[in-house]
Amino acid sequence: MSPPFPQVDAAGRLRHLVTLDGLPRALIESLLARAEGYASGSARGDALRDVTVANLFGEPSTRTRVSFELAALRQGADVVNLDNALSSRAKGETLLDTVHTLRALRVDVFVMRDVEPGVQEQVARAVDGEAAVISAGEAHLSHPTQGLLDALTIRQTKGALDQVSVAIVGDIARSRVARSAHRALATLGVPDIRIVAPQEMMPEAAEFAGARRYESLAQGIAGADVVMMLRIQHERAGGGPVDLPAYHREFGLTAERLAGASPRAIVMHPGPMNRGVEIDPDVADGPQSVIRLQVANGLAVRMAVLAQVAGPLRARAS
Amino acid sequence: MSPPFPQVDAAGRLRHLVTLDGLPRALIESLLARAEGYASGSARGDALRDVTVANLFGEPSTRTRVSFELAALRQGADVVNLDNALSSRAKGETLLDTVHTLRALRVDVFVMRDVEPGVQEQVARAVDGEAAVISAGEAHLSHPTQGLLDALTIRQTKGALDQVSVAIVGDIARSRVARSAHRALATLGVPDIRIVAPQEMMPEAAEFAGARRYESLAQGIAGADVVMMLRIQHERAGGGPVDLPAYHREFGLTAERLAGASPRAIVMHPGPMNRGVEIDPDVADGPQSVIRLQVANGLAVRMAVLAQVAGPLRARAS
Amino acid sequence: MSPPFPQVDAAGRLRHLVTLDGLPRALIESLLARAEGYASGSARGDALRDVTVANLFGEPSTRTRVSFELAALRQGADVVNLDNALSSRAKGETLLDTVHTLRALRVDVFVMRDVEPGVQEQVARAVDGEAAVISAGEAHLSHPTQGLLDALTIRQTKGALDQVSVAIVGDIARSRVARSAHRALATLGVPDIRIVAPQEMMPEAAEFAGARRYESLAQGIAGADVVMMLRIQHERAGGGPVDLPAYHREFGLTAERLAGASPRAIVMHPGPMNRGVEIDPDVADGPQSVIRLQVANGLAVRMAVLAQVAGPLRARAS
Repeated sequence: MSPPFPQVDAAGRLRHLVTLDGLPRALIESLLARAEGYASGSARGDALRDVTVANLFGEPSTRTRVSFELAALRQGADVVNLDNALSSRAKGETLLDTVHTLRALRVDVFVMRDVEPGVQEQVARAVDGEAAVISAGEAHLSHPTQGLLDALTIRQTKGALDQVSVAIVGDIARSRVARSAHRALATLGVPDIRIVAPQEMMPEAAEFAGARRYESLAQGIAGADVVMMLRIQHERAGGGPVDLPAYHREFGLTAERLAGASPRAIVMHPGPMNRGVEIDPDVADGPQSVIRLQVANGLAVRMAVLAQVAGPLRARAS
Repeated sequence: MSPPFPQVDAAGRLRHLVTLDGLPRALIESLLARAEGYASGSARGDALRDVTVANLFGEPSTRTRVSFELAALRQGADVVNLDNALSSRAKGETLLDTVHTLRALRVDVFVMRDVEPGVQEQVARAVDGEAAVISAGEAHLSHPTQGLLDALTIRQTKGALDQVSVAIVGDIARSRVARSAHRALATLGVPDIRIVAPQEMMPEAAEFAGARRYESLAQGIAGADVVMMLRIQHERAGGGPVDLPAYHREFGLTAERLAGASPRAIVMHPGPMNRGVEIDPDVADGPQSVIRLQVANGLAVRMAVLAQVAGPLRARAS
Repeated sequence: MSPPFPQVDAAGRLRHLVTLDGLPRALIESLLARAEGYASGSARGDALRDVTVANLFGEPSTRTRVSFELAALRQGADVVNLDNALSSRAKGETLLDTVHTLRALRVDVFVMRDVEPGVQEQVARAVDGEAAVISAGEAHLSHPTQGLLDALTIRQTKGALDQVSVAIVGDIARSRVARSAHRALATLGVPDIRIVAPQEMMPEAAEFAGARRYESLAQGIAGADVVMMLRIQHERAGGGPVDLPAYHREFGLTAERLAGASPRAIVMHPGPMNRGVEIDPDVADGPQSVIRLQVANGLAVRMAVLAQVAGPLRARAS
């Protein structure tokens, strides 16, 4: 892999959020602190006044696109949605021509989701110093605001992170959610991260450094403080057809199985859920579920990230 | 049918607008009065400042979606459009999971159109006390803001409603417009409501209580003060293919036939019109047509309903 | 052709912008002057406060739609996008019924792109005096804001227009960009306009009055101050399949061929570009390229046109 893109400027400020890899712990903590302010406060502000945000979603999304859109609107931004953002590609235009066009239209922040790896970094390099890129999901590799919201949710419910054990369960190999959660939690000092999956959904050995691996749900979540369930990413390459009833028998989270985790364990899921496959309804809606809190924290995290990357841009513009 | 959802709180205030069934006459009249203020005034305001409205249209719509969107924007709301709103259903998520996600993103008002009956009520029950649901069309059953705008239009042009006769003409069986107009007008004391349709487009006998039925256009509109034409809902289930020229011969409103109504009769149509099928162009554009006034009143009614349901939400939030 | 629509009122003010044909030179110059203010200044304002703009794009577009959307939002307008704007046509509604509906919803400005000729003029006649129409592209005929932005870009980079020579190169016959550029530049007194195209892409003899015609790229751009490249409009009727490598050999702009133009020639392209077909990457990204400036000027021109047509509407409303 090429060296990570320098997302942080010399003064330690965030310029883009393409990946959590290499992001300093202090910066992650300051983002979480800022997000916590939005989560507990009025969730309004004017940090994005005169800032233009373009949502460029190359994959369909409801929740993440709306989350970013509201995070921008509520801070006073102008927002344009280009759901098949890179639709000019259809007319033969390159990605960078589209980006330079939007930049010439004074778009300040590019929120981008794409199935191809590397697109966000490529755009960030092209607009660096003039505009910011925030990844809203990159292939199976990275979903940094999801990682941050997951960390925030665990910290809010469990207090300090340096004693918790977190089990991430499901289609790990194809999950950008798992990769970004692992990165955020490892950086923040979570001592016990477990990945739990059937053999064919296990990531390659070089990935998820430091995490323990389990092919049994019962063993993987035994005593865990956090059980993070994932959905099966059927739409992504790799893996064959999945026998859903069999998957549910082996890896579906039922109330009975959840009893094997810590009695005060929380249950997380990035959504959208497939009830009856990876999670049972009574668990999803039960007292240990923090799934709605995750969504609320996602909004707060995106407000914080948008405000942070826009700060230097506004300072330079004025 | 299950008992109607309690849309009105103990203090008599509107919390949701899912149906006109059971809505007290005084409440309908206060909504119309408020709408009339918007219709005659500047049609701007800040009743929705800091309120987020999500438009969730599961059926394609231009006019109604834009009408709600402008009714919200002009009162200062943040608006998100999710035209295939429930697109997460495609990923296996349930409707209520989508709704709880949007609620966690602090969506305050859900404007919903759906082909399936009962969806709006289901969502209203789920978010009750935290957010409001406004139906923008429910299957063939209900279109409450349309019923209100039709009542407002008749009252504006005819004065008091207690002496008018209203003929609703066309594909009544599959029309939510007809059902909601009937409900609004009956509640407001219109003494003479007639439904006029070929036998195969007549609703079941238990519906449209109190309305007189006619299978002849001439007899149905004879002396009527209001002639409300409907389009044929080909896209809805029920009924076979329609012979359009034959339909026009029997039920199309021509200038000649309109002469059989009251000389000062108004002509209404909810749009979109099929000129040359249910209505002739010279009638649609003629001096008796109030079709554009209906559209303008639709905007005013939606502003009033949005402002009314948002009031308690804002009061609680502050 | 029928006489041009009177876009200018008795006091000389712009009411619609459907075509550049017949627009007085003084009015074009005042639009460019106003645009230049936006291009050099803060590009924000409140000239569209309480104004509603509807984007009605019947052809897919990223750059032009977003350009108009941002030009409206940044001046305080409410904006609604109806990407398949005339989608009600699908339900059998006529274009004018859709327009009257939007007008009844108090839409003030209709920004319209359509594949059919004459649509914008038809709508402008229907709403004249109440609302304004701005063409965002009409068939192969006209793209007036593009013509204005091209003129502005040439004037900014070349100074006075009365001594420049401009070569427009490519699929002229099917290009609305070429027609509007020619019209703007001819009106502003550009003395030397050349159209350069293979024989099968040449417009009919009656068009492009006063322009010299070349079927050789080298001869056409020899000594030119401005080289404006066009893409091939495969999606439009007329012309057979194009042999792209052969086209590039004969009409693609390479650095070597550009050397035959004036040493200080600028290179323009309306976008989206097909790199390697009509233009080489090193030219598109080279020091003589003003392609991004064109995009920025497009935003400024659209702000100016929107502000100008909205002025009388706001004056009347208040």
